[in-house]
Amino acid sequence: MLFHVRMDVRIPRDLPEAEVAEILAREKAYSQDLQRSGKWRHIWRLAGEYANVSIFDVADNTELHEILSGLPLFKFMEVKVTPLLRHPSAIREDDT
Amino acid sequence: MLFHVRMDVRIPRDLPEAEVAEILAREKAYSQDLQRSGKWRHIWRLAGEYANVSIFDVADNTELHEILSGLPLFKFMEVKVTPLLRHPSAIREDDT
Amino acid sequence: MLFHVRMDVRIPRDLPEAEVAEILAREKAYSQDLQRSGKWRHIWRLAGEYANVSIFDVADNTELHEILSGLPLFKFMEVKVTPLLRHPSAIREDDT
Amino acid sequence: MLFHVRMDVRIPRDLPEAEVAEILAREKAYSQDLQRSGKWRHIWRLAGEYANVSIFDVADNTELHEILSGLPLFKFMEVKVTPLLRHPSAIREDDT
Amino acid sequence: MLFHVRMDVRIPRDLPEAEVAEILAREKAYSQDLQRSGKWRHIWRLAGEYANVSIFDVADNTELHEILSGLPLFKFMEVKVTPLLRHPSAIREDDT
Amino acid sequence: MLFHVRMDVRIPRDLPEAEVAEILAREKAYSQDLQRSGKWRHIWRLAGEYANVSIFDVADNTELHEILSGLPLFKFMEVKVTPLLRHPSAIREDDT
Amino acid sequence: MLFHVRMDVRIPRDLPEAEVAEILAREKAYSQDLQRSGKWRHIWRLAGEYANVSIFDVADNTELHEILSGLPLFKFMEVKVTPLLRHPSAIREDDT
Amino acid sequence: MLFHVRMDVRIPRDLPEAEVAEILAREKAYSQDLQRSGKWRHIWRLAGEYANVSIFDVADNTELHEILSGLPLFKFMEVKVTPLLRHPSAIREDDT
Amino acid sequence: MLFHVRMDVRIPRDLPEAEVAEILAREKAYSQDLQRSGKWRHIWRLAGEYANVSIFDVADNTELHEILSGLPLFKFMEVKVTPLLRHPSAIREDDT
Amino acid sequence: MLFHVRMDVRIPRDLPEAEVAEILAREKAYSQDLQRSGKWRHIWRLAGEYANVSIFDVADNTELHEILSGLPLFKFMEVKVTPLLRHPSAIREDDT
Repeated sequence: MLFHVRMDVRIPRDLPEAEVAEILAREKAYSQDLQRSGKWRHIWRLAGEYANVSIFDVADNTELHEILSGLPLFKFMEVKVTPLLRHPSAIREDDT
Repeated sequence: MLFHVRMDVRIPRDLPEAEVAEILAREKAYSQDLQRSGKWRHIWRLAGEYANVSIFDVADNTELHEILSGLPLFKFMEVKVTPLLRHPSAIREDDT
Repeated sequence: MLFHVRMDVRIPRDLPEAEVAEILAREKAYSQDLQRSGKWRHIWRLAGEYANVSIFDVADNTELHEILSGLPLFKFMEVKVTPLLRHPSAIREDDT
Repeated sequence: MLFHVRMDVRIPRDLPEAEVAEILAREKAYSQDLQRSGKWRHIWRLAGEYANVSIFDVADNTELHEILSGLPLFKFMEVKVTPLLRHPSAIREDDT
Repeated sequence: MLFHVRMDVRIPRDLPEAEVAEILAREKAYSQDLQRSGKWRHIWRLAGEYANVSIFDVADNTELHEILSGLPLFKFMEVKVTPLLRHPSAIREDDT
Repeated sequence: MLFHVRMDVRIPRDLPEAEVAEILAREKAYSQDLQRSGKWRHIWRLAGEYANVSIFDVADNTELHEILSGLPLFKFMEVKVTPLLRHPSAIREDDT
Repeated sequence: MLFHVRMDVRIPRDLPEAEVAEILAREKAYSQDLQRSGKWRHIWRLAGEYANVSIFDVADNTELHEILSGLPLFKFMEVKVTPLLRHPSAIREDDT
Repeated sequence: MLFHVRMDVRIPRDLPEAEVAEILAREKAYSQDLQRSGKWRHIWRLAGEYANVSIFDVADNTELHEILSGLPLFKFMEVKVTPLLRHPSAIREDDT
Repeated sequence: MLFHVRMDVRIPRDLPEAEVAEILAREKAYSQDLQRSGKWRHIWRLAGEYANVSIFDVADNTELHEILSGLPLFKFMEVKVTPLLRHPSAIREDDT
Repeated sequence: MLFHVRMDVRIPRDLPEAEVAEILAREKAYSQDLQRSGKWRHIWRLAGEYANVSIFDVADNTELHEILSGLPLFKFMEVKVTPLLRHPSAIREDDT
């Protein structure tokens, strides 16, 4: 089941640099594991913004929330979820 | 080059049914041609809304505008364009 | 899987009264069938507004969209969907 | 009498971890007591957000305010109240 | 139980003048009956706007909705309801 | 002359508790003096919010501003003023 | 007593040209009479918009509303009123 | 050339009182000098808000920006500029 | 003197095609005359929208308003004006 | 390929003055290098605001993002990107 998720990141200025680096490294590993598993289908950067748009393919709302709330950056993000489904004009097998 | 496009459709009530059907048929063909060509990479329906989120892969802003303004439904749509790029954590070849 | 849906109804003034009555009768039957099936878990009116807040329990986003887009009033509604899940503090069996 | 309440939680970063844990424990107990009493009818998590949507069944506006302003997390919440009533299409006894 | 209600009126231009006059006369009688009964506690005009702010004193949300949805102008209004209660600093007996 | 005023209070977390208590005590006394004088006609709490809606009866805009900017909590408030007048349907003597 | 008023004009396209001309002529006369009387202190056009910002000097809210609701264009305007008072840094006699 | 400027002031709580007093004194002198020169045509306080609406009469956009960015309070203000011109119904010589 | 202007065009569906074509032809000629004169410095289309962003170089606010309100499409546009000036980092002669 | 970018700058008050000066100097050099290269086509200040509107001419979205995210002030800016293209009425060679 597909979800469109937009994440805007706001890292507080007073977070020690080393801590930021460590969180970002964990975030990247976490994201790439989920991409490899197929649950995090797509991720794109928005030009000029510290933000991404992603497509998730998960079993249900609960799994989506577990993934999102487990993000190392979760507490520094504004997250907006929109449920998606196959468009009647879609031709790609994997747009479902 | 990738763009995120959200399209919200508002078909006027007083458009004759046959005209609506004809426009929707042309819209579907137009979209599927572009999907086959690879320019319209993804299209998803938003649950509960007469709207879609799409990803376009075009040469430049001009081509994107030509495609969007050529949509049979263009005059009945609100369109919002956001330029995308590869995310540093992306692992899929085709998220670029 | 649970979804929170808010529906705001705007019936055009120039719709013939008989047609409105017929649509509303179909809407009520449609809603009550889905309530009986358990898919439309709850429905409440908002005080002072021609609107409702509902909770749906469906298999997935696709089923939710089919139900909502099949509403006799769908073309006269603004619909907003929010995916829900069990709250860690919930004690009711059926808040899942 | 039913009310729809949305609560968005923003816990300040500089609150000591032990204090946060203690507040959250009190919040959970407070909520579950009210759920058991029937006054806090439903509570659901919103996917991807540190927020909940709840349905309260209280005697009046005053009791609702006492419950909400007594929440251990109240000072860290944005709260939005919407009064509800039975929908004319509702069939469940307890949607009143 | 007190509610704060703001009503913004938008009468369509194509409504025949006689019909407007008749609706406004019914609206006034309806409002004054409720004022006399004590249920419509206060009503004020907003300077420069075709709108009012009112205070209702009703048994519950259901009675409030019945009153508001029964307004002859209801279908031409945008209505916003906010539940009120006694303020801890209030000294007037009738601010409850 | 009547004014509708909404006040939303945001007390900073780092204000010492004793200072908060002292400000709140002064705020209450200030408000009750003005209520007794008839200038602060009504005050109500909004359910679920640290906010009030009030009706002031003052000589002019200047007096209103002096009263509001003299509030002990003024620097911690967002204040919104709307000028009111007698509604043509009002029947109460004191809704003027 | 001074008020800041912004008026945005939206004349419906289907209003006959002669009727528009007649309304505009009456609007101009009405405004100029009030300017001559001193009640309509200032009026300025906003660059690029069919809108004005005006300063009124009236006895009270009621007189302001009578003036504004008496505007020949009133039903085609969106009006926003903000009460003003003398600024503590003002030096002009007539900024009061 | 005339400009409408709204300035909302937010002085940070942790600014030392003496510094605030000194800035406010400079702000007042700065404003009154410009009022005397005729460049700062009008200034009014908004009832209930720490804000003003002003009319500037300057040679061009550059001069306006120099004046505004030179305000001692500039870094603590939100400023909104709207270009004005003579209204076709204006009768005062100095509304140009 | 430079101004940033955004124009969003909404042509009503019921305008006869020939009338639309005639207005658009006049609009184009009007714009190109002003571009040749140097007053309309730049004009760009926004991708996916029936809108443009333009830069005007005019003597003052009055000239800007005359140009904008003289646009053949003016009554079908939403126009937003923002006054510009030379940026301290600019190096181009003609960014003034 | 052209992009319209609006940048609003918010420099935190607690940044040491020397650090601010150093960042601003680097920002200016960075911007002027890009202006000389032709990639940063235009830059204008907005009257009364610590903000600019700029036009970029870059190869693609990726280059735009690299330029913007490399701004010394990037972490203190809100950035909004809008893709542009040649307007059908444009006559200047360099509005493409």
